[in-house]
Amino acid sequence: MVASDIDKNKEKEFVQEITAQEDDFSRWYRETIQKAELMDYSPVRGCIVFRPDGYEIWERIQAGLDRRFKETGHRNAYFPLFIPESFLEKEKEHVEGFNPELPWVTEAGGEKLEERLAIRPTSETIIGYMYSQWIKSYRDLPVLINQWANVVRWEKRTLPFLRTSEFLWQEGHTVHATEEEAREETMKMLEVYREFVENELAIPVIKGRKTPSERFAGAVDTYSIEAMMKNGWALQSGTSHYLGQNFSRAFDIKFLDKDNVLKYAYTTSWGVSTRLIGAVIMVHGDDRGLVLPPAIAPLQVIFIPVGPAKRRGEVLARLESLLSGLKEKGLRVRADDREEYSPGWKFNEYELRGVPLRLEIGPRDIENRQVTAVRRDTGEKLVIGEDRLPGEVERLLKEIQADMFRRAKEFAAAHSHRAQDLEEAAAILEGPGGFILAGWCGAEGCEQAVKERTKATARNIPFSPPEEMPHCLVCGSRAAHTVWFARAY
Amino acid sequence: MVASDIDKNKEKEFVQEITAQEDDFSRWYRETIQKAELMDYSPVRGCIVFRPDGYEIWERIQAGLDRRFKETGHRNAYFPLFIPESFLEKEKEHVEGFNPELPWVTEAGGEKLEERLAIRPTSETIIGYMYSQWIKSYRDLPVLINQWANVVRWEKRTLPFLRTSEFLWQEGHTVHATEEEAREETMKMLEVYREFVENELAIPVIKGRKTPSERFAGAVDTYSIEAMMKNGWALQSGTSHYLGQNFSRAFDIKFLDKDNVLKYAYTTSWGVSTRLIGAVIMVHGDDRGLVLPPAIAPLQVIFIPVGPAKRRGEVLARLESLLSGLKEKGLRVRADDREEYSPGWKFNEYELRGVPLRLEIGPRDIENRQVTAVRRDTGEKLVIGEDRLPGEVERLLKEIQADMFRRAKEFAAAHSHRAQDLEEAAAILEGPGGFILAGWCGAEGCEQAVKERTKATARNIPFSPPEEMPHCLVCGSRAAHTVWFARAY
Repeated sequence: MVASDIDKNKEKEFVQEITAQEDDFSRWYRETIQKAELMDYSPVRGCIVFRPDGYEIWERIQAGLDRRFKETGHRNAYFPLFIPESFLEKEKEHVEGFNPELPWVTEAGGEKLEERLAIRPTSETIIGYMYSQWIKSYRDLPVLINQWANVVRWEKRTLPFLRTSEFLWQEGHTVHATEEEAREETMKMLEVYREFVENELAIPVIKGRKTPSERFAGAVDTYSIEAMMKNGWALQSGTSHYLGQNFSRAFDIKFLDKDNVLKYAYTTSWGVSTRLIGAVIMVHGDDRGLVLPPAIAPLQVIFIPVGPAKRRGEVLARLESLLSGLKEKGLRVRADDREEYSPGWKFNEYELRGVPLRLEIGPRDIENRQVTAVRRDTGEKLVIGEDRLPGEVERLLKEIQADMFRRAKEFAAAHSHRAQDLEEAAAILEGPGGFILAGWCGAEGCEQAVKERTKATARNIPFSPPEEMPHCLVCGSRAAHTVWFARAY
Repeated sequence: MVASDIDKNKEKEFVQEITAQEDDFSRWYRETIQKAELMDYSPVRGCIVFRPDGYEIWERIQAGLDRRFKETGHRNAYFPLFIPESFLEKEKEHVEGFNPELPWVTEAGGEKLEERLAIRPTSETIIGYMYSQWIKSYRDLPVLINQWANVVRWEKRTLPFLRTSEFLWQEGHTVHATEEEAREETMKMLEVYREFVENELAIPVIKGRKTPSERFAGAVDTYSIEAMMKNGWALQSGTSHYLGQNFSRAFDIKFLDKDNVLKYAYTTSWGVSTRLIGAVIMVHGDDRGLVLPPAIAPLQVIFIPVGPAKRRGEVLARLESLLSGLKEKGLRVRADDREEYSPGWKFNEYELRGVPLRLEIGPRDIENRQVTAVRRDTGEKLVIGEDRLPGEVERLLKEIQADMFRRAKEFAAAHSHRAQDLEEAAAILEGPGGFILAGWCGAEGCEQAVKERTKATARNIPFSPPEEMPHCLVCGSRAAHTVWFARAY
C-alpha cells in the first residue's frame, strides 16, 4: 500500500456514516467515541485507553471541580492504591458490597504475600484508618480532604467511560464533630456537583436520595444526581454519602469533644468519575458524532480555509491574522490548513469530533471582509464581519452552551412521565421510554417488582418532585415517597 | 485527658527539637517530613500517604511541568494500570530489569486469572502496543504523549518520597520517524526538566548521560539530571531515554514513510516523580525543619499577630486589612490568629513547615505603621513600611527564591572534588563527602571497583565537565569519559 492509498482509505474511513442513534444507540455510542478518538480498547479486559481528546475532557472536568472543592475549603491528598484484606473486612456492608468486584495482589517482589492486597475500589477503609491516627481533638475537625485517583472494580459487562474495570475519579472524605455538620457537607457537595454538571457540562440533573437498596455499601444515606441520556436511560452522575458513624466505629475515629467526652466522629464521602465523559456524549451527541459543550471542549473553534488553490496564499494570510485575534481572547482555536484533505472532509471530521464552532474563510469572504460560522449544535450558518469576529465568537460559544443546556432540559421534560401503576409504567418504558415519576410505599418488594416487570430501577427520591404521587405504583397502598424510576446504566 | 492537656501535649510535641542534620541526616529527614505533616506511613508496606502539604507541593510540580509539556507540543492521555505478563516479556532487557520489583494480580472478580497482570512499573510496553495500533503512516508522526499516573515497584528498602513501593510520576512516551528527531526530543525534555528544577525548585543539577550499567532497562541511551543533597549524596531527579528501535521492534511500531518504505519508528520516554519532593527537602531543609522555595510552597507567607491580649482587637483589624492587600497580589498568604497558641509556638511551627516568609504585627508596629518580616531561609529580620508591604513581599519572595538557588549552587560547588585515583576518591567520600569528578576508561570492571571501594556510583557523564580528566581513576589507562561519581539515593 502506498502513502496516497492510505490517505484515501483514511478519508473513506472518516466520511463513512456512523450508526444512527435511533437504529442502535449503544452501537452509535461505541462507534462515535472510538472514531472521534476519545478512547480505544486496551489489551487488558475491561480497561480502556483515554486518548488525548478524551483525557482532555477529563482534565477540564478535573480543573472545574478542583477549583470548586478548594473554594469550599477542601484540600487534596493521596492514599495508597492497595488495601489490606483485613481493612475491607472491618465494615460488614462495605466488604459485602465490594468483595465480588475486587482484583487481588497475591505476589510481589518475587514472594507470596502474607496478606492479600486489594486494588482500591474506593478508599473509605484506608482513609478511615489514617484519620483515626490523625484525629484526637475537636480542634482537629473538620477534616476536608479529596483524592484524585484511579480505582478498580472488576466488571463483568463493561461500556467505555460508563463502566470499566479501571476508571478515574475523585473521592472526597470528610470528618465532622456532629451529625448536622456532616449532613450539611453531604448536601453541599451534592450541590457542587449539580451546579458544575449543569453549568459546565450543560446536563440537567435531578437531585435526590437513593432508596435503601441503591445505597452505597456502608452509607446511612446516599444522595445522587441523575441525568437522562438521549435514549431515555438514566446515568447516575455523582453521589454524596452521609456515612454516619459507620466508618468511624469500624476504624475507631474518635475525638475528645469540647465537653471532655470522647466521641465517634461523623463522616461523609462523595465522588464523580470519568463516566461524566460518557454522560456528555450520550446527552449531547447526534448522528454526525460528538457535540461538546464549549466549556469543556478541548477545541472550541476550528478555522478552515476554503476556495481554489490559486488563491490559497491570500486566504491563509487573512486566516492567520484573524486566528491570532481569537487566540488573544484565550479561545481554544486551531486552523486546519492541510492541503491533503478537502474542506468537505474536514467539515465531517470536526463535526464527528464535536468542535462547537466552525469558521470558514474563502476568497469571497475576504472580499466581503467576513467569515462564515457554522454551529455544531444546530448546523446554523452565520456570516460575521471580520472586525466583530473575536467578540462574536465568544458570544456564540456562550449561546451554544446555554442552548445545549436548554435543549437537554426540554428533552428530559418531554421524556418524563407520571405512572399510577405498574402496567402504565411498563407501557411507557416499552414505548416512548424515559423517566417515570411514581408513588412508592417504601417496601423493597414493590421496588423489586418494578425492576422485574420493567427493568427500571429507582433512581432517586427527588428533593422537589414536580408532583406528589399518592399511591404506590405496585401495591396501591399509601405512598411514602415519590420516586423517579428509569432504566439505568 | 482533657482538651487543655491535649493542647499542652501538642505544643510540647511541636517545640521539641528535631535531630540535627549533622548528627543523623536520614533521621533528620524522616522526622522533619512527618512532623511537618508532608506525609505519614501507611499500613501497606512501603507505601506512604501524601498529606495535603506534601501533595500540594506535588500539585505545583505537576502544574509547572504540565504547562511546559503542553508548550512543547505534548498532550496527556491515560493507559491501563495493568500490564499482561506476556507484554512485559516482549523486550528482553526491560523484563529483566523490572521483573524482580513487580506486584502481580492473580485473582479478580472472584476468579483466578488466566494470565497474571503486573501493576505497571512504567508503561513502555502497554503504550508501545497501543502505538502500534494507531501509527500507520509518517503523517501520524510524531506522537507526543504524556501520562500522569501512579506506578508500583516493590522495593525492599524504602525511604519516603525517594523510594516507595507506590509513587506518583509522569511518563512521556513519544514516537518519531527518524533517530535524529527522537534524539532531539530526548534532549529537549531533559532540558525542560533542568530548567524547571533549577528555576522552580531552586535545585542546581548536572545534565549528562548515564553509563551503560545505569541505563534504563531497554534504552539505547539514558540521560539524567543529578542533584546534590545536603549530606553530599546524589539524587537522580529526572531521566530522559532514547529508546532507539528497541520498543518499536518489540511491539511492531511501524510506519509507511514518504519513500513508501515500511520502517520501524524511533521512540523516547522521560519521567520525573514524587522523589522531587524529597529533593526539595534534602537540598534546602535545615535544623529547624523545611525550607520551601516560594515558587512551590503551599503557603508563601504566614501573618502572625503579636503583643498583649488587651490590644488584640486593634492588631487583628490592621492585620486583616493588610492581609487582603497581599491576597489581591495573588500571594498564598494566611493569618494564624488562634489564641490558644503563643506567638513563639507559631514561629517554630511555620519554620518547621518551611513557610518562606513570616510577617509579624503588634501594637508597636501599628504605631510605626510597619510590619516585621522574617525570612525563613536566612532568619533575617526586616522592617517594612505598611504602604510598601505587597510590593516588598513580592520582591522578597523573588529574592528568597534566587538566594536559595545560589546557596544550593555554592554548596554543590564546595562539595565537588576531583580525584585522580581510587584512594583519593575514597578519602574524599569518607571525609568531606560530595561529588567526585574523575576519568573513566569505560570498562564496567573499573566502574564496579569504584562502587565496591567507595559505595559511590557513576551518576552521569556530564555534557560540560568542569575539567577533562585524562586517566581512569581505577586502572590508570587513558580515560574515555569524565564522570561524576557519588553515593546516591
